[in-house]
Amino acid sequence: MTNSMGTLFRITTWGESHGPALGCVIDGCPAGLPLDRTDLESALQRDVPDRLIGTPRGEMNRCEILSGVFAGRTIGTPISLIVWNNDARPASYDSARDTLRPGHADFTWLARFGHTDYRGGARASGRECIARLAAGAVAMKLAEMVGVRFSSRPIEMAGKTIAGEDDYELARAEILKHAEAGDSTGGIVALTIRGMPPGIGAPVFGKLQADLGRALLSIGGIKACEFGEGLAAARARGSTHNDPFHFGSDGQIETTTNLCGGLLGGISTGQDITIRLVVKPTPTIRIPQQTVHVGQKEPVTMRYEGRFDANYTPRVGPIAEAMAALVLVDHLIMSGLLPPTRLRDSAPGSP
Amino acid sequence: MTNSMGTLFRITTWGESHGPALGCVIDGCPAGLPLDRTDLESALQRDVPDRLIGTPRGEMNRCEILSGVFAGRTIGTPISLIVWNNDARPASYDSARDTLRPGHADFTWLARFGHTDYRGGARASGRECIARLAAGAVAMKLAEMVGVRFSSRPIEMAGKTIAGEDDYELARAEILKHAEAGDSTGGIVALTIRGMPPGIGAPVFGKLQADLGRALLSIGGIKACEFGEGLAAARARGSTHNDPFHFGSDGQIETTTNLCGGLLGGISTGQDITIRLVVKPTPTIRIPQQTVHVGQKEPVTMRYEGRFDANYTPRVGPIAEAMAALVLVDHLIMSGLLPPTRLRDSAPGSP
Amino acid sequence: MTNSMGTLFRITTWGESHGPALGCVIDGCPAGLPLDRTDLESALQRDVPDRLIGTPRGEMNRCEILSGVFAGRTIGTPISLIVWNNDARPASYDSARDTLRPGHADFTWLARFGHTDYRGGARASGRECIARLAAGAVAMKLAEMVGVRFSSRPIEMAGKTIAGEDDYELARAEILKHAEAGDSTGGIVALTIRGMPPGIGAPVFGKLQADLGRALLSIGGIKACEFGEGLAAARARGSTHNDPFHFGSDGQIETTTNLCGGLLGGISTGQDITIRLVVKPTPTIRIPQQTVHVGQKEPVTMRYEGRFDANYTPRVGPIAEAMAALVLVDHLIMSGLLPPTRLRDSAPGSP
Amino acid sequence: MTNSMGTLFRITTWGESHGPALGCVIDGCPAGLPLDRTDLESALQRDVPDRLIGTPRGEMNRCEILSGVFAGRTIGTPISLIVWNNDARPASYDSARDTLRPGHADFTWLARFGHTDYRGGARASGRECIARLAAGAVAMKLAEMVGVRFSSRPIEMAGKTIAGEDDYELARAEILKHAEAGDSTGGIVALTIRGMPPGIGAPVFGKLQADLGRALLSIGGIKACEFGEGLAAARARGSTHNDPFHFGSDGQIETTTNLCGGLLGGISTGQDITIRLVVKPTPTIRIPQQTVHVGQKEPVTMRYEGRFDANYTPRVGPIAEAMAALVLVDHLIMSGLLPPTRLRDSAPGSP
Repeated sequence: MTNSMGTLFRITTWGESHGPALGCVIDGCPAGLPLDRTDLESALQRDVPDRLIGTPRGEMNRCEILSGVFAGRTIGTPISLIVWNNDARPASYDSARDTLRPGHADFTWLARFGHTDYRGGARASGRECIARLAAGAVAMKLAEMVGVRFSSRPIEMAGKTIAGEDDYELARAEILKHAEAGDSTGGIVALTIRGMPPGIGAPVFGKLQADLGRALLSIGGIKACEFGEGLAAARARGSTHNDPFHFGSDGQIETTTNLCGGLLGGISTGQDITIRLVVKPTPTIRIPQQTVHVGQKEPVTMRYEGRFDANYTPRVGPIAEAMAALVLVDHLIMSGLLPPTRLRDSAPGSP
Repeated sequence: MTNSMGTLFRITTWGESHGPALGCVIDGCPAGLPLDRTDLESALQRDVPDRLIGTPRGEMNRCEILSGVFAGRTIGTPISLIVWNNDARPASYDSARDTLRPGHADFTWLARFGHTDYRGGARASGRECIARLAAGAVAMKLAEMVGVRFSSRPIEMAGKTIAGEDDYELARAEILKHAEAGDSTGGIVALTIRGMPPGIGAPVFGKLQADLGRALLSIGGIKACEFGEGLAAARARGSTHNDPFHFGSDGQIETTTNLCGGLLGGISTGQDITIRLVVKPTPTIRIPQQTVHVGQKEPVTMRYEGRFDANYTPRVGPIAEAMAALVLVDHLIMSGLLPPTRLRDSAPGSP
Repeated sequence: MTNSMGTLFRITTWGESHGPALGCVIDGCPAGLPLDRTDLESALQRDVPDRLIGTPRGEMNRCEILSGVFAGRTIGTPISLIVWNNDARPASYDSARDTLRPGHADFTWLARFGHTDYRGGARASGRECIARLAAGAVAMKLAEMVGVRFSSRPIEMAGKTIAGEDDYELARAEILKHAEAGDSTGGIVALTIRGMPPGIGAPVFGKLQADLGRALLSIGGIKACEFGEGLAAARARGSTHNDPFHFGSDGQIETTTNLCGGLLGGISTGQDITIRLVVKPTPTIRIPQQTVHVGQKEPVTMRYEGRFDANYTPRVGPIAEAMAALVLVDHLIMSGLLPPTRLRDSAPGSP
Repeated sequence: MTNSMGTLFRITTWGESHGPALGCVIDGCPAGLPLDRTDLESALQRDVPDRLIGTPRGEMNRCEILSGVFAGRTIGTPISLIVWNNDARPASYDSARDTLRPGHADFTWLARFGHTDYRGGARASGRECIARLAAGAVAMKLAEMVGVRFSSRPIEMAGKTIAGEDDYELARAEILKHAEAGDSTGGIVALTIRGMPPGIGAPVFGKLQADLGRALLSIGGIKACEFGEGLAAARARGSTHNDPFHFGSDGQIETTTNLCGGLLGGISTGQDITIRLVVKPTPTIRIPQQTVHVGQKEPVTMRYEGRFDANYTPRVGPIAEAMAALVLVDHLIMSGLLPPTRLRDSAPGSP
């Protein structure tokens, strides 16, 4: 259950970082959506947007669709996607076998399951997100059909605010400076969802910010999630934070500003949904760290000599878009804005 | 579905702000827990911790247990709790009937359900949380049985940091100053969960921060949720953010610091779980606001003359504790640390 | 969780047979449905269709709607229904306190929860179904909006086939003959659902017969559930069991016969859905029975002198209709045939 | 959602009859269970227990475990199982492309999804069950750890009662006689679950017969499901149907007879759970049938010349065992009798 999410549009993901493959099953995709492997592979190419500061692992992300699609369209059955691991090198982690890596889930995994996956994090690894990206690609194609679009970008990395391309280069230089010293850094990602019709979401426990927050906080290493003004709302006053209403050019009701971030009472206003995510520094670093060896039951200094993600803030953006798309497509179907069983222009074999 | 949460320990809440009553049904509470009305009523007294800056509404919060308890103990059947409204005054909202209140859910509710509840917010009202408080009281009694305890306090209000009692008075004065000018303010609440055993939570979508985040972001008016270092993690480095491990006095593995906030990979470390919530300013204010009248389809200036919550940050704390307790008791049961059907010292009628 | 059912249209029931009240919360009813207390009370009057052979208990079934309805229509929030017990007499069961009643759930309840509810069955009592009837009344009103209607009748009681009214009198006489001898009898109920559009249901685990079967088998005392030809299908051949297809008068595809009972592959064909339920004899009887006393840990002969349901087959029909309506309305909403949030002609307060 | 089942122990299946593969993901299997491919392949060999009257398709059922197992044991992550199709011959169905096969789901699938999968039934095919068998093999290994065991056998086929081996030959001869005439036949399967501890299950909607019934009625072609005495209970009296209680040799309470089939009030008594399933005749036959051509919109006589399952009653048994195991393992975990996260003797990498 912990590896599934969604109600009518539901995904289940599987696979370990250093197993043969990872994948997901998408249940509840309506019939008739054009879909093929290239849709997925272009999404998977966003896995490491900036290879210089990203993962050292070189994955091809070769992908297959094993079910749910026939003659180029979905048919209403579960879509089984598989991404083969070609650069899984369990051996490279062997030395660390019984040493708990600080900042990683080794210890909590041991406390829960009675063992650590010494091949390298099992599903408590950034690699786990590849299945989210694949599933998100399908959700985004559905969302596009009703005009909902997703975008993201790092707005801060290694303590440097990023307003434009130049800033990005400055932040990257700062990241690389720390990386050369064997250290990692964190950052902030901004996520924007455009084109949401008003009225999507639900009161009480089904609020959109609750469902979006859950999905986004499930991404490894996210330490905070802000909606609209976020933290600034704590220092605002009602008179400055409330968004006034007016009639738009087509007579529709809209907010004049969008400090609420497109959500009131957990339901979309029709304006952009704006979210910020705080990304912690990559836990794997080369600087020596104090920890324990669980076999010998004694303290050890951990010295890691390999490569590591200097900063994975850029990688979080595409995953956050995917997660948001998965949540919103589920809500769009539950609200009746996307059809639950088949798109108008339907699937192969139609008479 | 949107009014339920939980898997094995599951609550369903109901009731409108200006209806006759609100309540909840708790399904999955093990048999044998001592419980009576006074347990609930003392929890409900925390509804308005600071009446000076809290709600103008004067509720007795008279409570009844209609099922699930016999001879002072739970019996394993669903617990139906009801809290009667005695100060619901629908009439007092009549003038605002077709005017969309900025910052409230009137517009999004209209977009979703085709109407607004002009009695005053229906379930998009702070009053909705009374059922959460009642349910949380039961969860806290269960959590206490395994040593898990909840506390909270405002750490910032109206822009004033609150480190001690004096600070609280300064913040309150600032709140009242704005309130006299007809304006409201926001703040930040810190929530701490002590005594969590390590190993509770789950990987991937069932991470504790995901489930806690969802529950906390479902509280009305919360604009951000931070875990551990939260926002500060974005500016930290791996070498400063990672918590080292050592062996504690009893030989158990523990983190030397707790910057991660008691969670690694979504699973508890055994240290305190620390969370911060950002509370927006109360949307109802006396300062005139631009909005629209949906009946006459024209812009209007909204002038509200009544009383309002000057700042509801203090009210968020007890609700946040309740929500956290509901989530964690569910996880404690799912992890096998609390029994799913009956406590050792069981219920009435035992042979 | 065990006291809830449904996905988008979801009910949660509560209350013990001898507590102050029973009730249910309906979550997911769209806004705009006309509903008042009389709708429910007329449904509750079907609780004991034949008082001569039905329950000895004399309940008024006074009912209240505590939320979810305003000005005579549903508003999209959870509907909380309560039915007060006025003839709960816990004392009358006292003598049986530690004696396990054969055919009842006393023993299994004890095994699960560590106690028996000696007030009389708690939720393992026919009285539990009153909340199902109330919830079913709401579902039936929704189902009627798309032309789906429910009916039921006993087709066998006390071993007598009931084809018409005369047969019913013969069966009743047989029931009363056994009742005078202190014994109870069982029977079979036929349930028919008319007006289902084709295409409702789902493949694999979400088949309509699976969801209907679960709901119907959850009614106390049901020992078998048959669809269409049911048992007779075991003895049929493909050439006699398969329903041919033809084009109907409006050009629509339909089956020429309906031996499949309106379902193929778990999805509705558009013909009547036909189901039969086997009802066991009421476990409470006056004939002495061998059992055990759990306090004294010794065998005892149980001698019950009070009144009992001679045959509760007639009571099962309305409950089965209610359960079927709850399942099908959920499927109709999930399939997009009923709107998830509001009916066209919507609720009070609409501009 | 329709392709998943279970709460804490949850499976999701995928794959079409004539696609490249079928598979399932098992979420919630505790760490530490010994498991390898041979466990699954021996289960899959039970797919066609009697090849003479079973499927004409010759499948190798080559199986792979893609995740969740390391060094021969489960590790607590989702187990992804895949079974490759090697005898999928979509072409062989081409002639029937737009002709609705009577007794099949072609029409209802068309009504729901807007198309038929002319490759041959997609997921409305007996082939879909191969993933259930694989998942069931894992569940059975878990169930065995607490002594719960599953068995099944046909007790009637083609109208012939089967009490012993000789009877089976007589029934088979009857089946083959009809098959030569181009016709199919049905039957009845008895399923027995031994070793269930008392107290497993739940009241109201979570009754074991409800959850078992749902799982079993989701198997294609099942038209009825009986528990214990089943249909005979309709003709019994309370005095003959109620099972008396006595103290067993170890002082434990048990029923003297087991007419209730091991369940009272939806909770296990500790005796065998006994179930019967009615299997309809295979819909594919060679005898000509009246139906419609959806492309040409005209009636046609369908003439099928190929091979077909003469009687698939023997195939239902192993699938029914698998489904029962999946349901009961979920309940055993939810009741605390099987550990939710790890078996005592845990997984690889343990310190």
